[in-house]
Amino acid sequence: MSDEKRIVIIGCGAGGGTAAQFARKTDRKAKITVIEKGPYTQYSKCGLPYTISGRIPEFLGLIEYSVEWFEKMKVEVLLETEVLDIDMGGHVVKASGADGQLSREFDELIIATGAEPFLPPIKGIKDKSEGLVEGCFVVRTIDDAKAISARVKKGEKAVVVGAGLIGLEVGEALVERGMDVTVVEALPQILGGTLDSEMGGLVQSHLEDHKMTIMTNCLVSEARVGSNGVSGVLVKKGEESFDLDCSLLIVATGVRQTTSLAEKIGCEIGNKHGIVVDAGSRTSVDHVYAVGDCTQYKDFVTGDDIPIGLGSIVVRQAIAAGTNAAGGSYEIPAGVLLTRTSEFFGLQIGGVGPCGERFGDIETVSGKFAGSSLPEYVPDGKSIVVKVQADALSGDIVGAQTVGSSAAQRANVFAAAILGGLSVEEFRRLETAYAPAVAPTLDALTLATDMVAMKLARKKRKK
Amino acid sequence: MSDEKRIVIIGCGAGGGTAAQFARKTDRKAKITVIEKGPYTQYSKCGLPYTISGRIPEFLGLIEYSVEWFEKMKVEVLLETEVLDIDMGGHVVKASGADGQLSREFDELIIATGAEPFLPPIKGIKDKSEGLVEGCFVVRTIDDAKAISARVKKGEKAVVVGAGLIGLEVGEALVERGMDVTVVEALPQILGGTLDSEMGGLVQSHLEDHKMTIMTNCLVSEARVGSNGVSGVLVKKGEESFDLDCSLLIVATGVRQTTSLAEKIGCEIGNKHGIVVDAGSRTSVDHVYAVGDCTQYKDFVTGDDIPIGLGSIVVRQAIAAGTNAAGGSYEIPAGVLLTRTSEFFGLQIGGVGPCGERFGDIETVSGKFAGSSLPEYVPDGKSIVVKVQADALSGDIVGAQTVGSSAAQRANVFAAAILGGLSVEEFRRLETAYAPAVAPTLDALTLATDMVAMKLARKKRKK
Repeated sequence: MSDEKRIVIIGCGAGGGTAAQFARKTDRKAKITVIEKGPYTQYSKCGLPYTISGRIPEFLGLIEYSVEWFEKMKVEVLLETEVLDIDMGGHVVKASGADGQLSREFDELIIATGAEPFLPPIKGIKDKSEGLVEGCFVVRTIDDAKAISARVKKGEKAVVVGAGLIGLEVGEALVERGMDVTVVEALPQILGGTLDSEMGGLVQSHLEDHKMTIMTNCLVSEARVGSNGVSGVLVKKGEESFDLDCSLLIVATGVRQTTSLAEKIGCEIGNKHGIVVDAGSRTSVDHVYAVGDCTQYKDFVTGDDIPIGLGSIVVRQAIAAGTNAAGGSYEIPAGVLLTRTSEFFGLQIGGVGPCGERFGDIETVSGKFAGSSLPEYVPDGKSIVVKVQADALSGDIVGAQTVGSSAAQRANVFAAAILGGLSVEEFRRLETAYAPAVAPTLDALTLATDMVAMKLARKKRKK
Repeated sequence: MSDEKRIVIIGCGAGGGTAAQFARKTDRKAKITVIEKGPYTQYSKCGLPYTISGRIPEFLGLIEYSVEWFEKMKVEVLLETEVLDIDMGGHVVKASGADGQLSREFDELIIATGAEPFLPPIKGIKDKSEGLVEGCFVVRTIDDAKAISARVKKGEKAVVVGAGLIGLEVGEALVERGMDVTVVEALPQILGGTLDSEMGGLVQSHLEDHKMTIMTNCLVSEARVGSNGVSGVLVKKGEESFDLDCSLLIVATGVRQTTSLAEKIGCEIGNKHGIVVDAGSRTSVDHVYAVGDCTQYKDFVTGDDIPIGLGSIVVRQAIAAGTNAAGGSYEIPAGVLLTRTSEFFGLQIGGVGPCGERFGDIETVSGKFAGSSLPEYVPDGKSIVVKVQADALSGDIVGAQTVGSSAAQRANVFAAAILGGLSVEEFRRLETAYAPAVAPTLDALTLATDMVAMKLARKKRKK
C-alpha cells in the first residue's frame, strides 16, 4: 500500500472536476482519479443553450478544464468509463472503459454522479430502442446541444416542454436562431421555483414581447412523428386540446438524481431522493463524500431538505468535498441560499431564498417596489422590480426576487443580508451606493424593504 | 401658543426637504416651515453635471420636490429667505426675505445649511466684488450649471481643478459637449477618498482613453483673464510650470461646512469642522437637529469622526431628523459605510468603507481580482475589478472597491456584508447568483475575497 492518500471521484462534471481541483490544492501528493462516463472533462451544462444560440461559438468552448489541464495537475481522468461496482470492504472501485475492465483503490471516495433528465409521459417520444425519436431532445450534454443545433431550421416551429430556466434559455436560443417557438408549461406560471407568479408574469410578458409563445397550465400528451422525425405535438389544457406543428421538440422538465451507486454502498438517500450530505459534503458513510445534482442538503432559511441543482452550490460543495477528502477542512454554511439568476432577451432576473410556497413553517410578509434604476430626475433609467420577503415573526429578511437592471447583483445584496442575519429594520437603513448616473439615494432594494417594514408595523399594531 | 408642534427647518436641499417630508409623515398636524436662502426647493446637486451634458434636458428637471408639492404637504416654504438669527430663549428664528424681515417660532429646529465650495488660492479668479471672474465657475447650484452650460463652446479648451467625483463628472460632461478638457489634480491620484491609487489608476486610463487629459501632482496657481474672461491658467508641478489656454475654468476642490448659525446657538462643532450629530441627527443642543453636508458623524468601521458629504447619507440623516423632531423614533446605524458610486463614459465604479489611508487604527489586508463579469467560457463578458479589504486582526470585511460591470450593486453586496458583520471566511462562502449569461459560479466578489483569505492564512502561519 502506498503512502499517498488515494482519492477516487466518480463523475467529471462541475462537481467532480472541482472536487479534484481542490483535493489537489489541499494535498500535492495524493493519487487522484476521476472516472467519467461521458467523453468530456468538466464543462458547463448551464452553458449549453448559448452554444445553440451561437453566443458561445464552439461546443467544446464549454469545457472549463481540459484533459491536458487535469494531466498537468497530475489528476488521472478516465473518460468514457462507467463505474460498475464499489467494494467498500476492499476499498476498490471497479469500472469498465474502452480498454475493458479496470479498478482503482481508494481511501476517500467522492460521488458526483449528477442527475438524468426526467421525461414526462409523452406518448411517442421514445423509439423502439428506448431512445428519443428524431427531432426530440433533452438538454443535458454537449452532444444534446450539437444535435439540437443541427436540427434547427430558421422559419420552422419548435416546441419546448417546461418553462424553467433551461427550457426558457433554450427557447430564447431558438428564437435567436429564427425559429417560431412555443413553450408549454404544466404549472400556471413560468419559472416556478425561481420567481413567484407575479414576478414570473413580468418575465412572461417580456418573452412574449420577443415573439415567444407561452402556454401555461398545459401538458404535452403526445408527439406526432413522421418520416423526418417529430412533426407536431398534442397539447392538453384541461378538457381542451390543441394540435401544434413542430419540427423540433425539446423536453426540459427537470431531472432525477443519479444515486444508485451511492445507494448500493449504503449512503443515506433522503426524502428529496438525493444523497444526504452535511456542510462538509460528507455522506452517511465514512470516507464517502457526495456533491452536486445527486445530493440533497438543507435550505438556509427554512432548514428543510432540498435537492441541489444550482451550479453555484455544486461548486461550493465540491470545494468542501475535495478539500476534506484530501485532509483539509472546509464547510459550507448551514444551508443553501438558492441565490439565482438568468437573463432573457436582455432582461436580467435574480432571486435568493425559498420561492413561493416553499417557506416551510415560516409565515412571510412581502413588499414590492417597481421603478427606475436611476433617480427620478434622470430620464434614461432602466426598469427594476424588487420584491423582498421577511419572516413575519422575527422580522428577518428571508428572500428576495429581482427583475431588471443589475438584478443578479441586487439578489447578491439580499444574499449577504440573509447570511448576515439582517432584519428588515437593519436592511432598510443600509447605505446603498448613490449617483445620478447609477442609482437613486434610496435604491429599489431599500424602497421594497420599506414596504415590508410598513406591513410589519401594521401587523404589529393590529395585535 | 398653539397645540401643534412647530418645526422650523433651515435649508431646503436634500437634507432639509427630506426632513420636512418625514416630519410631515410622522405628524400630520405639525406646523412645518422650511427657510431656504436660494430660489429653488429641494433639487439634486449631484445631478448638476448631467444638466451640463444634456442627459438631463432641463435644469429645473433636477427639482425633486416642487413648491407645489410642499404646499400640498402643508409645509410652508420660504424661498430666497436668509436666516439672520436664532433666539433659543424665545424659540424664534428671525429671517430676511423679499418682503422684509420675518420670524417663525419653533419647538424643534433642524439645521440643514449645507456647505459652500472651497476655493483654493488661485491668483486672479476673483473679481473686485469678490465674485468669480467671467468664465470661472464652481459647481454647487442650478445657477452655476446654467452659467457653465452657457459658456461651453465646442472645440474650445476647458480646465477643471480637482479630480474628485464632481470634477470628473463635469469633465465628462464637457467632453461630451465637445470641449477639450484637462483636469488638474493636486494629489498623485484621481478620485482620492473614493478609490485607492491602484483602482483610481484604472479609471484614469479609461478617462484618458476618452480624450480627457489628466494632470496629477499639479496645482493651478493663477488664472489668466482677458477681455472675454478666463483665457488660461498657470499649472505648477514641483519646480515646473505649464501655461494652459482655456476659455472655461471649473473649480471643484471640495467644500467647507456652513456652521455659523449652529455655532451661534452653541451646537458642538467637531474636529472635522462639522456640527456633531448622533444616530438620531440630534446636535448637542436640545431640540436642535442637524443633517447633511454641515454635519460630521462616525465612520462605521473605524469609529472615527468624518464629515458627511454623500447624498445617500444626507437623506438617511434627514429621515431620522424629520421623524424624531416630529415625535417619532428613527436612528441610522452607529456609523456610515460610505457606500459610493459613479460612472464615467460607461465605466461604473463603486466603493464602501474607508479608502486608502483612512482606516484609523485598523491594519488591513486586501485582495484583488480582475477578470470578466461572465464565466470564462462566455466570450462577451465585461471587465470587472474588485478589491476587498479585511481587518487583519478580526478577519472581518471592512471595505471594498469595484470598477466595471454592476460595480455599484457589487459595492452594495459588501455594504450589506459589513453591516451584517460578515468575516472573510463567511463572505467567501456566500452563494452568489450564477448563470452563463450573467455571472460566473464564483463571482469576482468571491475570488477577490479568496485572495484576502489566502493572505490572512499566510499571515497567521507566519506568527
